[in-house]
Amino acid sequence: MAGTGRRGAARPWSTGVPTREEQREVKRRALVHEAGLAFRRKGFHETSLDDIAAALGVTKAALYRYVKDKYELLYECHLVAMDLGDAALEHGRASGRNGLERAVLTLEKFVVGYISENSAGAAIVNIDALRDEHRAEIVRRRDRFDQGLREFIREGIADGSVEPCDPRIATFAIMGAINWLPRWFRPDGALSGEAVARQLIMFFVQGLRSDASRGRPA
Amino acid sequence: MAGTGRRGAARPWSTGVPTREEQREVKRRALVHEAGLAFRRKGFHETSLDDIAAALGVTKAALYRYVKDKYELLYECHLVAMDLGDAALEHGRASGRNGLERAVLTLEKFVVGYISENSAGAAIVNIDALRDEHRAEIVRRRDRFDQGLREFIREGIADGSVEPCDPRIATFAIMGAINWLPRWFRPDGALSGEAVARQLIMFFVQGLRSDASRGRPA
Repeated sequence: MAGTGRRGAARPWSTGVPTREEQREVKRRALVHEAGLAFRRKGFHETSLDDIAAALGVTKAALYRYVKDKYELLYECHLVAMDLGDAALEHGRASGRNGLERAVLTLEKFVVGYISENSAGAAIVNIDALRDEHRAEIVRRRDRFDQGLREFIREGIADGSVEPCDPRIATFAIMGAINWLPRWFRPDGALSGEAVARQLIMFFVQGLRSDASRGRPA
Repeated sequence: MAGTGRRGAARPWSTGVPTREEQREVKRRALVHEAGLAFRRKGFHETSLDDIAAALGVTKAALYRYVKDKYELLYECHLVAMDLGDAALEHGRASGRNGLERAVLTLEKFVVGYISENSAGAAIVNIDALRDEHRAEIVRRRDRFDQGLREFIREGIADGSVEPCDPRIATFAIMGAINWLPRWFRPDGALSGEAVARQLIMFFVQGLRSDASRGRPA
């Protein structure tokens, strides 16, 4: 891409050609994705920037143009997971007709995204390793997701679609099951991502729904 | 205890007095327990032997009489969890009248023990940090527990007490919910250990049981 966009992307002939900033963003996203894969494979503490550079086929010096260190990459992985959570909550809130549906639609969107996004999976188990200022932000966003889910469960108990339970503990149980995913699910393993998502959601539905909202299994 | 048991504990007057080996074992167990607490509180990577020595009010040199390093303590925490798992499986196998009961009794015993034993909780989330030879042993024992639980679920599907599902995924979901416990449950927090255990088990029962074995909630 030599010679394009060096001085900004406002010139008409460059329409459709990614700007320098867009290219940078694409590369940065690929880097976060690769870091997510490496963290999942080897564990965060056991992965170095050298490992990630090697996986991308570039030098560590090249990586430093995008990130300061691996802690920043971990933070970026967390942001992917948190954005996913926000989108899932919004989907559940907009599309569910009762508390159970809102909870289940949220979980469905989150689990499917979580399975297809390595960076999200890599992130969750390593929240302690984040830098203090990043951790505070991520914990706040994670708590907001948990509270949204908890609220749907509470609504479901009130409208009769969810079996009476402690919404906090139910939420922790569900999030535990999801957050444990990266520990055992391998995209190239015997179980397909779709099967895993479907079964997990079925398990959550069974665990949450009241007798009144329980249909016969197909 | 100067002068007692130095040359073995076979002398009649020492009956009832702990032998040197027994005293050593008690101290070692207290050390593992304290390490479990520290790992849970600060995370394994962030905890040093100095921290553990300080919590016990002894010098690091004193600790070296019991363990080589913190990796050995982590391994000991894992052994506590694995012994708990073996006892739980045995209990479920001996006392359950169908697959669902066997699975639920196993989980109940495991969760209750897991909540009261900090060392167990500390262990599970840090399996990657174990030394290779220890990790292989622990992974083998953990897999044996998972397989036992999976087998009960399979039996439950066959005898009609468990809703048809993929027993592998159901087991991973359940173990995820349990293994996530140390991330949010605080013995001194707002939720009691009993309430957490009861709610988790209720959630698993709901998630697993078939319509045929479903009673009305109290």
